[in-house]
Amino acid sequence: MLPPFVSIPPEAIRDLERVFGAGRVLHTPEDLIVFEYDGTIEKGQPQVVVFPDTTEEVAAAVKIARRYDLPIVPRGAGTGLSGGAVAAVGGVLIAMTRMNRLLDLDTANRTALVQPGLVNLELSRLVAPHGLYYAPDPSSQRACTIGGNVAENAGGPHCLAYGVTTNHVLGLEVVLAGGEVVWLGGGVRDLPGYDLTGVVVGSEGTLCIATKVLVRLLRLPEATRTLLAIFDSVDDASNAVSAIIGAGLVPAALEMLDAVTIRAVEPALHVGYPEDAGAVLLIEVEGLTEATEEDAAKARSIVREAGAREVREASDAADRERLWAGRKGAISALGQLAPNYYILDGVVPRTKLPEVMQEVMRVSEAYGFPIANVFHAGDGNLHPCILFDERRPGETARVLDAGEAIMRVCVDVGGSITGEHGVGLEKRDFMPWIFTPADIETMQRLKTAFGAGERFNPCKAFPTTKGCGEVHSKLVTAFGPDAYV
Amino acid sequence: MLPPFVSIPPEAIRDLERVFGAGRVLHTPEDLIVFEYDGTIEKGQPQVVVFPDTTEEVAAAVKIARRYDLPIVPRGAGTGLSGGAVAAVGGVLIAMTRMNRLLDLDTANRTALVQPGLVNLELSRLVAPHGLYYAPDPSSQRACTIGGNVAENAGGPHCLAYGVTTNHVLGLEVVLAGGEVVWLGGGVRDLPGYDLTGVVVGSEGTLCIATKVLVRLLRLPEATRTLLAIFDSVDDASNAVSAIIGAGLVPAALEMLDAVTIRAVEPALHVGYPEDAGAVLLIEVEGLTEATEEDAAKARSIVREAGAREVREASDAADRERLWAGRKGAISALGQLAPNYYILDGVVPRTKLPEVMQEVMRVSEAYGFPIANVFHAGDGNLHPCILFDERRPGETARVLDAGEAIMRVCVDVGGSITGEHGVGLEKRDFMPWIFTPADIETMQRLKTAFGAGERFNPCKAFPTTKGCGEVHSKLVTAFGPDAYV
Repeated sequence: MLPPFVSIPPEAIRDLERVFGAGRVLHTPEDLIVFEYDGTIEKGQPQVVVFPDTTEEVAAAVKIARRYDLPIVPRGAGTGLSGGAVAAVGGVLIAMTRMNRLLDLDTANRTALVQPGLVNLELSRLVAPHGLYYAPDPSSQRACTIGGNVAENAGGPHCLAYGVTTNHVLGLEVVLAGGEVVWLGGGVRDLPGYDLTGVVVGSEGTLCIATKVLVRLLRLPEATRTLLAIFDSVDDASNAVSAIIGAGLVPAALEMLDAVTIRAVEPALHVGYPEDAGAVLLIEVEGLTEATEEDAAKARSIVREAGAREVREASDAADRERLWAGRKGAISALGQLAPNYYILDGVVPRTKLPEVMQEVMRVSEAYGFPIANVFHAGDGNLHPCILFDERRPGETARVLDAGEAIMRVCVDVGGSITGEHGVGLEKRDFMPWIFTPADIETMQRLKTAFGAGERFNPCKAFPTTKGCGEVHSKLVTAFGPDAYV
Repeated sequence: MLPPFVSIPPEAIRDLERVFGAGRVLHTPEDLIVFEYDGTIEKGQPQVVVFPDTTEEVAAAVKIARRYDLPIVPRGAGTGLSGGAVAAVGGVLIAMTRMNRLLDLDTANRTALVQPGLVNLELSRLVAPHGLYYAPDPSSQRACTIGGNVAENAGGPHCLAYGVTTNHVLGLEVVLAGGEVVWLGGGVRDLPGYDLTGVVVGSEGTLCIATKVLVRLLRLPEATRTLLAIFDSVDDASNAVSAIIGAGLVPAALEMLDAVTIRAVEPALHVGYPEDAGAVLLIEVEGLTEATEEDAAKARSIVREAGAREVREASDAADRERLWAGRKGAISALGQLAPNYYILDGVVPRTKLPEVMQEVMRVSEAYGFPIANVFHAGDGNLHPCILFDERRPGETARVLDAGEAIMRVCVDVGGSITGEHGVGLEKRDFMPWIFTPADIETMQRLKTAFGAGERFNPCKAFPTTKGCGEVHSKLVTAFGPDAYV
């Protein structure tokens, strides 16, 4: 853990307690310890954590932190995978988990107004009786919050067809760094004014704190069909992905698991993936009953032509759940193979998948680490997981080098350093690989325009700046109950 | 025409001619006159027009204008409907029409890199041999440019299913107000950093000038089916729209024409709309052959239940073209009914359509003007066209009042003052209806963050400021070859 960068005066605690009462302000070491990490293992302890119930309380906390020049870090469920919710240099952590209500549901126009602490899956559960659901489905959806999803512009398996978080957020109430409360966007299409909603979604908590989120809901599909296509190699499976998209079919989800992953998943979860396969594709089509029949038949014939040795189809809902359990439990199952992993998040043009997967294998051989791949193939969004043992001296450093080499491959083929996990603490020093100094300066001007200075979620997203030098720029993800991808 | 707000020193012309050569710099009154208007009738003459061929020339023009503190106005084809490309207070008009090339086509990843002056429909024509097209299709698509579409975040009939311009722009090269060249966004999903691409799309030329646009292309559908549903009333047709969307069907297009419009269109264009109908809906479904059959059958049964007295289907491509000709030629056909119209652009939650249409009729009666309605019903995007005769004294002023009353109705039901035409000069004084001073200030800060001061496309989008007082804030659209919606 890093030492806090700032010290906090007792008056600041007192001012916070005046607003929140002593019960919703934590500042003893034993209380703070559970707030020092997110889904990564890098840590940073805040000096105080507050739990607002209202927008006004968020604004009050922001103003008090500002008065004492303290860093401000907003936080949802802490499941993030780039360190975005870690109090890198200490300060006031604003935990949004109590603001977790569905405020309004408009079934006719299919929108929901929610508080940011609402858990992603809980939203879909609440609106399901009306035949609706919220589409972006990160693998952490049982735990992660809508506010955190907004901060990271979260993706998920079903974002291939429906788009990532930014495509589902219509408006936001936010507290700016100066404590002002502003409403951005709204419930109708193409509002006038600059698209500030779009800027805030994916801004990794560096511009403002969302206090209300107006989301778009989708209608639950009439029918869903889930196929498991089994291949002898990742190459064949990658080509099948290109062939499916190239044929004009956009499945609701199109996920790949490679041989290393399958050999971890199958013994642990018994979901029925063949252990001798080189790769499997999970293909899901949704829609009206007859259309999904046609789509499933088309997908089946395309993957056959692309070399699938077998195509299975889930026979019922339970069978479908089982196939997905393999995908959703894949990262945790990697614990069968090694005590640690370093999970990467890169994105490449879809047609570069076979080439990039070969490069990933080359890195695996060059550095001597097994690498498991489980990812959103349809989007070209890779998640190579480098398997290692942090107890072996020097191994962590070499893993980080291998990870950097893979990121470099993604960028070199025209891809990017993150598909959905964000830059956070982890990848800010890679930003210059894809942005010129002028690009980064334009983004920094925007941060200034929002009034969010150095103290507002410091050391995130931008290349290392003064005062953040002590914070490591690369993080390693540990196994545990929060291990998602 | 308003008098130019600034005078231009001969040195500025000389500096521009040094970069562009005399042939690409216009500054005599007879040359300037054709650049003083857009699709509205409000005028504003620039003092000089330049025609860059390259990004570097755009940057040079911006720097020269800045050196002499002259207003800068970017312009595409000039088909805009809110005055965004009008040189409201004079200055340097940067005409992007020569930068009209398709620079790169990536058929595998379905992206095209284009110059901003490329005409919308020309892009679809160029990529059609590869089975691709560019989805956003404003009715002006035969003339309007991709750059103008980016500025206004243009919509179109087929944006119901596919989204407006912002959903199809992946990246931009832009020249900032200081002359810096910056690249925003890119070809892969969910890039890190703030979504500045999203901010620039729809910023109405007030932040920067796009010099390259990376767009997403779609695959031409295997099959298209076009239905014409005929109703006795707008109410029934509006309810049918809600029923279609409510049933989970998202047609590629869902357009309404009311009785006034039909009675203008049919005698002029003979497309086969029944002249005694209260309203017609054009419903288009696209996709795989069997799926469109199912969708068309479903749409047919829904509109029947909602009270359609007849449903026709286009029998072939020519028949389909004919049905669309009625929609695309509707605004021009209104010339049959009155010498002038004032076209509005409001958007309301879809379920409010019947209520809002009744209010529009009430305004029509109260002010004594016929109002024709032709619009993107599926999106709740209205285009009431108030028919009048500007030669009658006082009539224009009353038309503007009636228009304001209708805009007010849209806002009062939770809608907005523009669905796709932008705020521009026309509706900047309505901005406070939907944004608080803090909201507007946040947007203005963003303009500052881009380095775009008062001189960069002045008097657009924001409520009236000093120096723009002379510019009328409401514009009237005239009939003519450029009349589109």
